[in-house]
Amino acid sequence: MINGAAADPALKGRPAHRLVDEAAPQLRVTDLAATRGDGVFETVGVFEGRPANLSPHLERLQRSARMLDLPELDLEVIAQAVDAAITAHLPVPELLVKIVVSRGVEGQQRPTAWVYADAASSYASARAGLRVAALDRGIPTTAPQTSPWLLAGAKSLSYAINMAGLREAARRGADEVLFVSSDGYALEGPTSTLLVKQDDCFVSTPVEAGVLPGTSLGAIETMVEGEGMTLERELLTPQQVADSDGAWLLSSVRLACPITHLDDQELTVDRELTERMNAAIANRG
Amino acid sequence: MINGAAADPALKGRPAHRLVDEAAPQLRVTDLAATRGDGVFETVGVFEGRPANLSPHLERLQRSARMLDLPELDLEVIAQAVDAAITAHLPVPELLVKIVVSRGVEGQQRPTAWVYADAASSYASARAGLRVAALDRGIPTTAPQTSPWLLAGAKSLSYAINMAGLREAARRGADEVLFVSSDGYALEGPTSTLLVKQDDCFVSTPVEAGVLPGTSLGAIETMVEGEGMTLERELLTPQQVADSDGAWLLSSVRLACPITHLDDQELTVDRELTERMNAAIANRG
Repeated sequence: MINGAAADPALKGRPAHRLVDEAAPQLRVTDLAATRGDGVFETVGVFEGRPANLSPHLERLQRSARMLDLPELDLEVIAQAVDAAITAHLPVPELLVKIVVSRGVEGQQRPTAWVYADAASSYASARAGLRVAALDRGIPTTAPQTSPWLLAGAKSLSYAINMAGLREAARRGADEVLFVSSDGYALEGPTSTLLVKQDDCFVSTPVEAGVLPGTSLGAIETMVEGEGMTLERELLTPQQVADSDGAWLLSSVRLACPITHLDDQELTVDRELTERMNAAIANRG
Repeated sequence: MINGAAADPALKGRPAHRLVDEAAPQLRVTDLAATRGDGVFETVGVFEGRPANLSPHLERLQRSARMLDLPELDLEVIAQAVDAAITAHLPVPELLVKIVVSRGVEGQQRPTAWVYADAASSYASARAGLRVAALDRGIPTTAPQTSPWLLAGAKSLSYAINMAGLREAARRGADEVLFVSSDGYALEGPTSTLLVKQDDCFVSTPVEAGVLPGTSLGAIETMVEGEGMTLERELLTPQQVADSDGAWLLSSVRLACPITHLDDQELTVDRELTERMNAAIANRG
């Protein structure tokens, strides 16, 4: 259930958040979030009451807003609303907090924003391992440079394709998707970042290829560098992912989930390393 | 303003519509329309109180719902809600009625649907002619066959790219967009169907190439066949569009708008033919 929804403001020069009734409808049917998927969002993992990697999430929200030509966001007000939503929720070990900024109600030229907290589902099965289907994402890794209006790498509310990808994966008997660019490179999951281990080097997809900047990667980088390894940005093919020493889909609430299978190919899984990674992501403030 | 919003039902086995207060919020912030752009929609033009081409719109809504794996819709209930929304609105010469079906509130596994009527803007300038920018749509015309999860040709609520295309067009000094496939063919506008005249033959984009089935094309076909001409489905390049004997972007509310320029190239404009086309679209019940 929602708890501690904080509706509206979050934009420069506007008043701070206000708490609203979680059970009541809050949005007009003409809000562009609902009519055009026209807005941006973030989902933050909250562990024992502490939001993990909040700064990277807020920075990415601002980045997405810029890519969609939305007004500059007041990240301080949003951070306060995140705190308020967490405080208003019953204390549970794992929460998710969703931050949404919409272009606003049609015709009003005034963005709307809201934040809500919800108890996280159980991700025990996903954290044990994912069967992943590789699916064509249609566009090439050059799209951000040649066609910025395709919004590759913006976390917009227009996620119908991401959701359709997950349904296609389920039809194939898989739990998750690894999107592949039309020029043949592994990109990211519909709601997750790809991380691959090759010997002592971890690799994630370059942001320039049109993926979201993974908000957990900073925590991973600190951890692997502390262990004498490195984190690089490099384009890999799905075959290179399958042949690696381990691969994960990282997301803020579900954390690092090892890929056990990419289509029909079985991957190496290191449970102990996965646990250390998850501790690193969840503990980072 | 909205008037005569009819919220909820529209799905088989569910009760008929109910009228709700247009000024009140109707949607939960966890409705998947607002969190994922996960739903489908139609916008119907209403002229002198009569919805134009309603059947093609309802058929296309059902088609889009199937492409998104939504439950089968009860089109009769939706048609009744459309009537109710029109009746509840002040009588104005031109209305638009929007029909939205969302996958529903997160976790409830129960779609939500609503219909609302709103007075149409003035489209005098667009109907006089549009400067159009050709923009890459990223994906090839083969996407519907190879990658149905990309939802090419489904009218989903995930329109952030369509809206970003329009902003890019404005930056280029244009009014509208003609999306072009990655294999080089003219597709459609962000909210419109392409129609091109070559001698006595009208041409529109084949639906198989990943465009929406244009709901005004039936009316156009009847009209042009009555005048001894034909309407064909064929892939054209942007250059063929620019070299044609006239091209239009068709939409249900704005009607047929002649393209005066495609990027820097000036097109032939036949105002008298455009007026006949608009009468044909608006009069068809």
